[in-house]
Amino acid sequence: MTKEDIFNHIEAKSSYLCVGLDSDIDKIPRHLLKEQDPIFEFNKQIIDATIDYAVAYKPNLAFYESQGAKGWESLAKTMEYMPDDVFTIADAKRGDIGNTSKHYAKAFFEQLNFDSITLSPYMGQDAIAPYLEYENKWAILLALTSNESSKDFEQLAVTDDSDFFNIVTHKLYESVITKSLQWQNNDHLMYVVGATKAEVLAEIRKIIPDHFLLVPGVGAQGGSLEEVSRNGMNKHCGLLVNSSRGIIFASQENDFAGVAGTKAREIRDQMKEYLDKYCK
Amino acid sequence: MTKEDIFNHIEAKSSYLCVGLDSDIDKIPRHLLKEQDPIFEFNKQIIDATIDYAVAYKPNLAFYESQGAKGWESLAKTMEYMPDDVFTIADAKRGDIGNTSKHYAKAFFEQLNFDSITLSPYMGQDAIAPYLEYENKWAILLALTSNESSKDFEQLAVTDDSDFFNIVTHKLYESVITKSLQWQNNDHLMYVVGATKAEVLAEIRKIIPDHFLLVPGVGAQGGSLEEVSRNGMNKHCGLLVNSSRGIIFASQENDFAGVAGTKAREIRDQMKEYLDKYCK
Repeated sequence: MTKEDIFNHIEAKSSYLCVGLDSDIDKIPRHLLKEQDPIFEFNKQIIDATIDYAVAYKPNLAFYESQGAKGWESLAKTMEYMPDDVFTIADAKRGDIGNTSKHYAKAFFEQLNFDSITLSPYMGQDAIAPYLEYENKWAILLALTSNESSKDFEQLAVTDDSDFFNIVTHKLYESVITKSLQWQNNDHLMYVVGATKAEVLAEIRKIIPDHFLLVPGVGAQGGSLEEVSRNGMNKHCGLLVNSSRGIIFASQENDFAGVAGTKAREIRDQMKEYLDKYCK
Repeated sequence: MTKEDIFNHIEAKSSYLCVGLDSDIDKIPRHLLKEQDPIFEFNKQIIDATIDYAVAYKPNLAFYESQGAKGWESLAKTMEYMPDDVFTIADAKRGDIGNTSKHYAKAFFEQLNFDSITLSPYMGQDAIAPYLEYENKWAILLALTSNESSKDFEQLAVTDDSDFFNIVTHKLYESVITKSLQWQNNDHLMYVVGATKAEVLAEIRKIIPDHFLLVPGVGAQGGSLEEVSRNGMNKHCGLLVNSSRGIIFASQENDFAGVAGTKAREIRDQMKEYLDKYCK
C-alpha cells in the first residue's frame, strides 16, 4: 500500500484509527469458544463491526503464537479475511541479522501479505534493510515506546562521534530516527512513538515532518488523543493511532462486536474533528 | 534447566557447542522434500548425528515462521523430539510490553517447552521481566551482536545520568549488561556476544564474570573459537558457542547428517582442548 493510498483511506473514513487485534483466548467472549476457530471468529466479528471507522488493523503476534500452530492458522485466516482497503500491521517487533530478516520478511510480507511489520532497531541497519526492499511494504521502527521502561535505554543520552567534526548528543530514540533517515529506501519507514509522551511528538516532528507515526497507548496505556493529534499531525495526517483493549474488549459478553463498533465510532468522531482542526 | 545442569552437560560431553537449527527449506537436501514434514525430518537427523557433541540446540524462528502454520508444527515436533539433556534456545529475539511478553513467554516456555529465548533489550526492563519469572528458564539478552551494523546503535557511547553523582559513559551494549544486573532474577539472564568481537569478550567478562554468554558467529560469520574461549571462558565454562550453517549445511547431499556429525565432532575436539586449557 502506498502512502497516498493510506491517506486516501484516512480521508474517505475521516479516521486514522488502527484497531489492535490482541485477541487473547482468555479474554474473548466465552460463547465463541464453541466455534471451530474462536480467535478467527472473534477477529472476523470485530473487523465487520469496526471496518467503517478504522483504516488499519494490527494483530499482535504474541497472542497467536501462544496458541501454537493453531494460532498461526487463526492469523492466516484473519489476513485472508481482511478487506483490501485497510492497512495491515504485523506487530511482531522482530530484528535479526540480514539472512534471518529475509525469512521474517518472507513470512509476514509474502506468506501472510501484511503491509507492514514492527521492528526493533537494536541491531542496526542490516537487520532492517531486507524489509525495505519490498515495494509498497513498510518497516515500522520502534523509536520511543509507551512503557515505563522506555527510560532504561530508549531515552539514554547517546553521543554519536562517527563524524569527528560533528559530534552530537541526543537520546537513543532520536538517534534511531536520525540514522535510519540515511538508510536506503527510508521512505518505506514509519516509527512507533508512544502516546504517553505526547509532548515529545512535536520534537520528533521536527526531525521527521513527513513520515507516518504509529502511536500505541491511547486508551488502556494512557495518552490523550487530542494531544497526540495536535502535536503529531502533518498535512497528510501522518498518524495511525492504535487502540486494542479499549475497543476489542470493551464488552466481553455476547454484545462485544456491537460495543466494539460503538467505541470505534466514538473515536472516529473525535478523529474527524481533529483532522479538520490539525491536518494542514 | 539450572546453571549446574548446563555445566554438568558441558563436562559430560567436553563440549559447549550449540547447533543452530536454521533449517531453511530451500537449503535442506532435496531428497527430504518427499517426506511428510521435511524440516522436522531434517532436524531429527541433524540432532541424532550431533547429539554426542552438542549441549544445546537453537532453532531460529524465522525459518519456521516463513513456512506458516506448517513451520510452527515442524518446530513443535522438533521440540518434542529433543532429548532431555540438552539446553534449548528459541532464537526469537522478541521484546514487547509486559502484557505481550507474558504471552510470548507462554508460547516459548510453556507451549514449546524451550529452556530459553533470545530477547531484544531495546524496550527495557518491563519487556524482559515476565520471562525472568519462570524458574529454571532463561532470558538471553542481545548485548553485542556479530553483524556489521552493531556499530549503528549497540556500540554508541551512552551517558547514564540517572545517578547525578555518578554519571558514567559507556557503550550501549555495556549499559544493557550493567543495568540488567540490577533487575530482579538477573541470575536467569544470559547474554548474546558476537564472536567477531573476541577482543571485547575479556572486557565484558569484567562486568559479568559468572553469567553464561551465547556466542554466535563462529564459522560462517567469522570469529576464532580459541580467541573466544581464551577471552570468554570462566571456571564453569560460561560459554555456549553456536554454529549453524557450518554444521547443518556442511553437506547438502544425502550424506548431510554424517557430515554434520563429523563437523560437530571436530568442533567438540577443539572445545575439549580449550576446556582443559581455559576453564578455570
